[in-house]
Amino acid sequence: MILRTSPASPFGRKVKIAASVLGLSDRIEIVPADTSDPNDDLRRQNPVGKIPVLLTEDGTALYDSPVIVEFLDHVAGGGRLIPAGTGRFQVLTLQALADGLIDAAILQVYEVRYRPEERREATWVAYQAEKVTRALDHLEAKVGAIGDALDAGTIALACALGYLDFRFQGTWRASYPNLVAWLDGFTARVPAYGKTTPA
Amino acid sequence: MILRTSPASPFGRKVKIAASVLGLSDRIEIVPADTSDPNDDLRRQNPVGKIPVLLTEDGTALYDSPVIVEFLDHVAGGGRLIPAGTGRFQVLTLQALADGLIDAAILQVYEVRYRPEERREATWVAYQAEKVTRALDHLEAKVGAIGDALDAGTIALACALGYLDFRFQGTWRASYPNLVAWLDGFTARVPAYGKTTPA
Repeated sequence: MILRTSPASPFGRKVKIAASVLGLSDRIEIVPADTSDPNDDLRRQNPVGKIPVLLTEDGTALYDSPVIVEFLDHVAGGGRLIPAGTGRFQVLTLQALADGLIDAAILQVYEVRYRPEERREATWVAYQAEKVTRALDHLEAKVGAIGDALDAGTIALACALGYLDFRFQGTWRASYPNLVAWLDGFTARVPAYGKTTPA
Repeated sequence: MILRTSPASPFGRKVKIAASVLGLSDRIEIVPADTSDPNDDLRRQNPVGKIPVLLTEDGTALYDSPVIVEFLDHVAGGGRLIPAGTGRFQVLTLQALADGLIDAAILQVYEVRYRPEERREATWVAYQAEKVTRALDHLEAKVGAIGDALDAGTIALACALGYLDFRFQGTWRASYPNLVAWLDGFTARVPAYGKTTPA
């Protein structure tokens, strides 16, 4: 299998960690993708041009990251990162919340990347930042119940916090001690997290 | 169950159509949500403030729309809108492509809604519009193979095209005759599509 992603992508990081936890890393070749390059095959593999994309052994392109994580779980036998019974939808909702946090953070990064200063809109950036804050507030209160579960939801949560470390200088850490402690535990339990930290 | 959504939401429309196809509409009360209102309970139900959110009978909040559609499929017995075996990941990838098309279309709408004219960025809007065009080009070539399948992928595709009808005056129709014919067939087969057309 081939994974199209970039070292900085938090959604690609989710997939790399999932593959490692499932023992599938050896079966996946990472081929870097450049979302900004119109000539990159990425835009044929996924017409909306987002990463990550997984090319399966028969050449089928799968996306986006929740679909890829579920596919890898299926390849590994199923029910390991996404439980089949009770708890499935809570795990998937936690993943959606973490992915939504990342989306709101990315839109703040894109505000700078894709616009000259005079066309940036402070109310839009604040609107996205409030989404991140509300998600962190909610997760700070909830993370004790999450505990040391290792699944698609907690992998996404770790990658969301890692993205805030990477792009927002880890300023979240001052206000969310429970999440800091939880991420420390996750990092200790899941070596792939440290190995996929963007430079 | 309670569904928080708005009449204009394409992702909420997916859920409403899925519920209808699965025979679950009678078990779901729709409670309108206003994503722009800080006092709407929505922001407690889903901290990132997106719709739709499904409140299950025990009060658990589930999101986002792919998770809700899968949950409803599970409630209805499973394997009806998302096949369990072969084809599952193609269905989920088609859904992700249609959802990605919608996301790129929504960002163009938000450019107007959330910014004064002098802070709109034409290159950003064009970047999103190109995503929509590439997705339509890809789907136009592929839709013959999709045929009359009724699943999470084709429901999402119909809602994506419906969103372009709603917010972009259906200008896509002039260039994509296969998709127009496919949507006509879908509309005829799935009464809930017409019943959920935004005003």
